[in-house]
Amino acid sequence: MTEVGGEDAKVWAKRDAAVVWHGFTQMSSYAESTPITVDRAEGHELIDVDGKRYLDAVSSLWVNTIGHRVPGLDDALREQIEHGAHSTMLGNGNRIVIELGEALAPLVPVDDPHFLFAGDGASAVEQALKIAFQYWANQGIEDRAKFLAFGGAYHGDTIGALSVGDGGFGTELFDPLLFPVLRAPGFGDPDCFVIAAEMIERHASELAAVIIEPLVQAAAGMQMAPPESFAVLGDACRANDVLLICDEVATGFGRTGTLFASEQCGLRPDLMALGKGLTAGYLPQSATAASGRVFDAFLGPDLSEKTLYHGHSYGGNALACAVALRHLELIDTLDVLANVCARSAELRDLLDDRVISRPEVADIRLQGLMCGIELAPPEDGLRWGRRVCAAAVRRSVLLRPIGDVVIVMPPLTITTAELERIVDTLVASLDEVCM
Amino acid sequence: MTEVGGEDAKVWAKRDAAVVWHGFTQMSSYAESTPITVDRAEGHELIDVDGKRYLDAVSSLWVNTIGHRVPGLDDALREQIEHGAHSTMLGNGNRIVIELGEALAPLVPVDDPHFLFAGDGASAVEQALKIAFQYWANQGIEDRAKFLAFGGAYHGDTIGALSVGDGGFGTELFDPLLFPVLRAPGFGDPDCFVIAAEMIERHASELAAVIIEPLVQAAAGMQMAPPESFAVLGDACRANDVLLICDEVATGFGRTGTLFASEQCGLRPDLMALGKGLTAGYLPQSATAASGRVFDAFLGPDLSEKTLYHGHSYGGNALACAVALRHLELIDTLDVLANVCARSAELRDLLDDRVISRPEVADIRLQGLMCGIELAPPEDGLRWGRRVCAAAVRRSVLLRPIGDVVIVMPPLTITTAELERIVDTLVASLDEVCM
Repeated sequence: MTEVGGEDAKVWAKRDAAVVWHGFTQMSSYAESTPITVDRAEGHELIDVDGKRYLDAVSSLWVNTIGHRVPGLDDALREQIEHGAHSTMLGNGNRIVIELGEALAPLVPVDDPHFLFAGDGASAVEQALKIAFQYWANQGIEDRAKFLAFGGAYHGDTIGALSVGDGGFGTELFDPLLFPVLRAPGFGDPDCFVIAAEMIERHASELAAVIIEPLVQAAAGMQMAPPESFAVLGDACRANDVLLICDEVATGFGRTGTLFASEQCGLRPDLMALGKGLTAGYLPQSATAASGRVFDAFLGPDLSEKTLYHGHSYGGNALACAVALRHLELIDTLDVLANVCARSAELRDLLDDRVISRPEVADIRLQGLMCGIELAPPEDGLRWGRRVCAAAVRRSVLLRPIGDVVIVMPPLTITTAELERIVDTLVASLDEVCM
Repeated sequence: MTEVGGEDAKVWAKRDAAVVWHGFTQMSSYAESTPITVDRAEGHELIDVDGKRYLDAVSSLWVNTIGHRVPGLDDALREQIEHGAHSTMLGNGNRIVIELGEALAPLVPVDDPHFLFAGDGASAVEQALKIAFQYWANQGIEDRAKFLAFGGAYHGDTIGALSVGDGGFGTELFDPLLFPVLRAPGFGDPDCFVIAAEMIERHASELAAVIIEPLVQAAAGMQMAPPESFAVLGDACRANDVLLICDEVATGFGRTGTLFASEQCGLRPDLMALGKGLTAGYLPQSATAASGRVFDAFLGPDLSEKTLYHGHSYGGNALACAVALRHLELIDTLDVLANVCARSAELRDLLDDRVISRPEVADIRLQGLMCGIELAPPEDGLRWGRRVCAAAVRRSVLLRPIGDVVIVMPPLTITTAELERIVDTLVASLDEVCM
């Protein structure tokens, strides 16, 4: 077993806690919680300041797709450096951004898409919300001002994204700053889409859009719904002329086994938010894809009020777009989706064989390479999720839980041997913490 | 005079409009408005798909600081590529992020700062707002839930950032989604800070924080206030125990002649939002700096409700942080601040000599290398700002207006000869459009 926190690691953790504020992290115990201070990365491994190696079994928090230091992606970056890092998208363009848009257009399940780029995934969601809102206003329809979202939803941390999210993590604190939304049940309720469809019909005249995480509510602890159950939702949006926003920030770019989860759900959204895997886990860049119908509602006289007056400085960053473009090619040439499906089946078998029947495991949810293993601690306050993941990190496999759900979300190019290592480690960690 | 829009440029502009949605841009006329499609960049110039060169006199929309293809910055990127592009900041760290935090800490006018990184500038503002809000809640004080902001303010386009902004650009449309704020007058009112101070005193018991763009309200068309006038605001915040947030996304990293505008204003904010120039105009990355006092209010038991449950996937991106770190060294070794001050004085002289007395010019506002030249069209609808900038672009100098204010915001390493070229071009463009 590798010890976490060699001498250099301890020194770096203290230096870290002295100047950096880590999100979703209680900083009072940061330095003592033996965090990994990454010095470099290679393939599926992170290497810390002491030279210790960790299998990146959460894809650097759900962003990495085909590993670190991928020669093709590194080359794309180096080539773009020779052209320049960034020029603005406000009123002008950049060749590599156009090439990325053209490559993405036939791949997203959105009709005649246009891409508005931003930096954070939350910003892409905010863009989708604002576009949906203005879409109706641009047609002189003033009452279509509300959003319907789902129980357990997470769409990001900015105020608009937080508004359509369903709290959790103690973020109810910010409720006074949020706008109200209509809330359908979460994916845990098998009737959630039927109920949502009824709500859509009843509130159609006041709804701008419905926003959903297709297939998997990731931050809710990998809550999943059967792909076929989403049809009633898409039908209700179409029948009642309500826009549909699919937030594929977490699910996009192969994570669920198809390039986009919407495909499995039979959804063709009017707006789609993309992030995380868009740049293969390399660089901050997100995008909102808008259908031609939505885009057209913003066309009008120059300088007119139909324009979308919204834009982030680094939306369409050339370096990020160069990586994203090469990433699309590599997903194809490496046959990444086939690997996701094959490894997903293997992971299911491994978990069925060795984990599901354990008494401390309440449920296992798996879709592609998004997996949540829900523990069932016999009493509150045992922090099994946290402790099991810490035990895994001591065994050189980086896991991070959501509450008592252990998340396994390896890079999409993970191998059979690495999956076996992850499950071996998980079993040993469960033995250590929960027996 | 260079013609804009060679054959390749026209083809690319059409391809662009077919798949990309440009922020703050009316897309119906995009392809016909002869946009520049950048193929590469060098120093202070952008080079389009036809090989035509344009002087980047708006710093790629206010982000670029020391030019494009800067050897030191390119080297920093290449070196970091060898270490890996990105690892997560959620619960773990990365060496280069710590080094950046340590380098920034003594430079920002914030006591004992900690840095929470994000992708977009708007996200950094949202973080500051949420931290200020939770700061009071963490101390059991529930009524400190409002924000005071200024007339003319712009803080970004996400819903929280938009809430503290003062509309404009037709964004009043989104008012139903925004939270209400207390609004002091804009910088155009010489009494704005005295009035704000009175409002702070009157509303102290319900105010979480005041948010301000120190020295220059950039998006308002470069509205400026004298540095010494800000003291009363800082005093009022301190005296009434209200947090002060300085949004230095546009003004930070030397643009106003000091590293941060807050320094000239004598302000030491509790929270500061950084973006744009943080990465020299290379990569999406922003940061919220929080004082030790604010940071300490979030310390508590592990997993406790005192934690800030907020984080963006690519906050603390290693590639962006590597560039930002090298940028700080180059600001120093290139003596960038001295160049800003010397060139600012030259620009003032040039504008005093050749522009201010022109009848079509109403006002010139200049602070460091942030400059707004306000035109005075004799009647509405002449779009002088747009047309003058288009005339400049035809002369190979990229300018972009805000309404009828022509913005000149060159890279901080601009030369005397280049400034003369910008003013020559401006004069010729005014001659063409306004005579």
